[in-house]
Amino acid sequence: MVDIATRVWNHRWKIDPIVRSLIDTDFYKLLMCQSVFRNRPDTTVTFSLINRSTHIPLADLVDEGELREQLDHVRTLSLRRGESTWMRGNTFYGKRQMFTPAFMDWLEHLALPPYHLDRVGDQYELTFEGPWPEVMMWEIPALAILMELRSRAVLETMGKFELQVLYARAMTKLWEKIDRLRALPDLRIADFGTRRRHSFLWQDWCVQAMQEGLGDRFTGTSNCLIAKNRDLEAIGTNAHELPMVYAALARDDATLAQAPYDVLSDWHEEHEGNLRIILPDTYGTKGFLENAPDWLAGWTGIRIDSGDPVEGAETAIRWWQSRGEDPHDKLIIFSDGLDADKIEDLHRRFAHRTRVSFGWGTLLTNDFRGLTEGDALAPFSLVCKAVAANGRPTVKLSDNPRKAMGPSEEVARYKRVFGVGEQVEMEVVV
Amino acid sequence: MVDIATRVWNHRWKIDPIVRSLIDTDFYKLLMCQSVFRNRPDTTVTFSLINRSTHIPLADLVDEGELREQLDHVRTLSLRRGESTWMRGNTFYGKRQMFTPAFMDWLEHLALPPYHLDRVGDQYELTFEGPWPEVMMWEIPALAILMELRSRAVLETMGKFELQVLYARAMTKLWEKIDRLRALPDLRIADFGTRRRHSFLWQDWCVQAMQEGLGDRFTGTSNCLIAKNRDLEAIGTNAHELPMVYAALARDDATLAQAPYDVLSDWHEEHEGNLRIILPDTYGTKGFLENAPDWLAGWTGIRIDSGDPVEGAETAIRWWQSRGEDPHDKLIIFSDGLDADKIEDLHRRFAHRTRVSFGWGTLLTNDFRGLTEGDALAPFSLVCKAVAANGRPTVKLSDNPRKAMGPSEEVARYKRVFGVGEQVEMEVVV
Repeated sequence: MVDIATRVWNHRWKIDPIVRSLIDTDFYKLLMCQSVFRNRPDTTVTFSLINRSTHIPLADLVDEGELREQLDHVRTLSLRRGESTWMRGNTFYGKRQMFTPAFMDWLEHLALPPYHLDRVGDQYELTFEGPWPEVMMWEIPALAILMELRSRAVLETMGKFELQVLYARAMTKLWEKIDRLRALPDLRIADFGTRRRHSFLWQDWCVQAMQEGLGDRFTGTSNCLIAKNRDLEAIGTNAHELPMVYAALARDDATLAQAPYDVLSDWHEEHEGNLRIILPDTYGTKGFLENAPDWLAGWTGIRIDSGDPVEGAETAIRWWQSRGEDPHDKLIIFSDGLDADKIEDLHRRFAHRTRVSFGWGTLLTNDFRGLTEGDALAPFSLVCKAVAANGRPTVKLSDNPRKAMGPSEEVARYKRVFGVGEQVEMEVVV
Repeated sequence: MVDIATRVWNHRWKIDPIVRSLIDTDFYKLLMCQSVFRNRPDTTVTFSLINRSTHIPLADLVDEGELREQLDHVRTLSLRRGESTWMRGNTFYGKRQMFTPAFMDWLEHLALPPYHLDRVGDQYELTFEGPWPEVMMWEIPALAILMELRSRAVLETMGKFELQVLYARAMTKLWEKIDRLRALPDLRIADFGTRRRHSFLWQDWCVQAMQEGLGDRFTGTSNCLIAKNRDLEAIGTNAHELPMVYAALARDDATLAQAPYDVLSDWHEEHEGNLRIILPDTYGTKGFLENAPDWLAGWTGIRIDSGDPVEGAETAIRWWQSRGEDPHDKLIIFSDGLDADKIEDLHRRFAHRTRVSFGWGTLLTNDFRGLTEGDALAPFSLVCKAVAANGRPTVKLSDNPRKAMGPSEEVARYKRVFGVGEQVEMEVVV
């Protein structure tokens, strides 16, 4: 029996929305948003979409009208009652009332601010400007929309069974990875793949496959909507955007040098336990740790998001030891360009030396490499970053110079202030 | 939106029937049934299920109660109005009114006769006895039911996503074969996989994938229900059951030697063109062709269903040449244990020397080899054959002694009458 109402309803769609909920976003965005709302609510920021894979001609692949429709649709979204109830009533990281009543009142009235879209050559220039707590909420939906519109453009040319076989292959590919990971004892792994996912439905499938395939070893998802729908833990802590904006706001070199620690000092007041995770690489991990105040060594863990992950983990372990901490009590979260082989390798190297956890992103939710002719569905490196704060440019150095960004004279100044020397370049796949 | 009515309806099922239509059967069964109805309506036959893969303990795998339910359900089926209309009104092999009004009147009132089911060790003894035109209609549903009940027993132990990945892998596997076959120019291939299919829905999927993947090179399906539902050609001619029963009815050796030709003589009166296909191997291809009357050389083609197919095709070509026929005008149909590699090989060898066509069976609709632990879903060799006619045992020799059947003294007599010497044994996979 065909459900006629469903058919008729589907025919009425003006568009098939990609982002259908304000909480179809990463959990750490909400945590950071609350932190910004509390500590720096009046900052004006500019976020900008940056396609690091310039060989992907996004503006040729994705229709501008469709892109505008999708972005416009996001601006019509507001927090639904059940979503608000979930955020207010749920336990996150073991804590009730993670989100304050003041923040929730504000979030319930949030509508995303306008966007600016221009076509430049074969790329889009997409920027968002306004109050930091509002603008920052654009990052994940903007990325997810562009990734999925690109997927749709490729899928549109395929036959019905060709499509089914494409998904069959992608399912098989993921399941084979899950089969391999099942062999790792005490694995702890979460889905971090919202931003560069193939599509919402596919991410939802991947999460459910991880649930069935890995059981307790699958610790949750960064995606709040999926966490809510599937009764999973929402996972995530904080990101580069905080130190980047704090740093841009610094009046002089001394304040700049202090900015990354100011971020964590604010965070220290708000969060404890597994939410106290250091992201040390914004301006070079080595210098950051050497100059870190002692109270930071008491934090639970370190997230390694750029550079050689083995070197990063060794650096973290040495640092804890130098500060009199036992690495066995600490947590290292790997989250940079992971795939099954890298996860296996890192787990084998470090699981007996410290607590280890993985945030598996794009190659969990968008590994269509090798599945289409010309690899037209291979994921690529698209980011949406804060590029300015109160009119001043932001800078990121990272532990991989290919991930660095900012005006070159500012990059030079930051390198000097943070004492960053030679860095090893590493390929950025996703 | 969930279709509530569908859900409620599904909950009401006493069983989930495997065979839901009398025409969920091979087209050649209907052609042969009409021929039997016309030429030998009063013959009493016994059909018996034979599991040639004795390592598959069918009675341990398949619940007897479920098996009885499925068989009982088939006995409740009768030809539906739309099915009768399709048989009466459709064009088969370019001919209108393939089925006579008298046969259709009879078929519209047909209900399948009783079955006899016993458990013997880890196997089932399943037999059908009665008038030939009625009993013969049991063959395909009986096989399809046992194959699918075995699939269901294995699938029952699997998780939801494990199941989805299983089908994903099976789809990928088939699509890769289709991709290979797409490279063959002028390929002509049909689905012959009803009897030993994994399940009805899976066969339906395979047929549709062949349609999309091969276009015109996919010539149709032997399954009448799927042909009707999908607007495809119904494909098939005749099978061993005709010469086996005709031979069993022979009063003496001379009549016996003539029986296979009597079958084709009856067929000659009823059919022309592409339905005039010789199946020469029932009692040895070599002797059959040597002793064949000249009018048989005028037939359109030969189907090769046992033995080494290359040798079979060479024998056929030499025979046509010896009778003054041009093999380029003739058709060879390969239908024994085909898979993509064998199809490629035979096409490459013979497509320029004669017209070639393929009837792809079990490894099209049930190739789950290597997809489950312990290969629990690998297809196996189950047949349902006429074992007696008017109380006399039937015999099949075939071009592969492993496919031979019948009491040994009768096998010896047939070998003598038909001049069959040494034969090469070949493995029977499916």
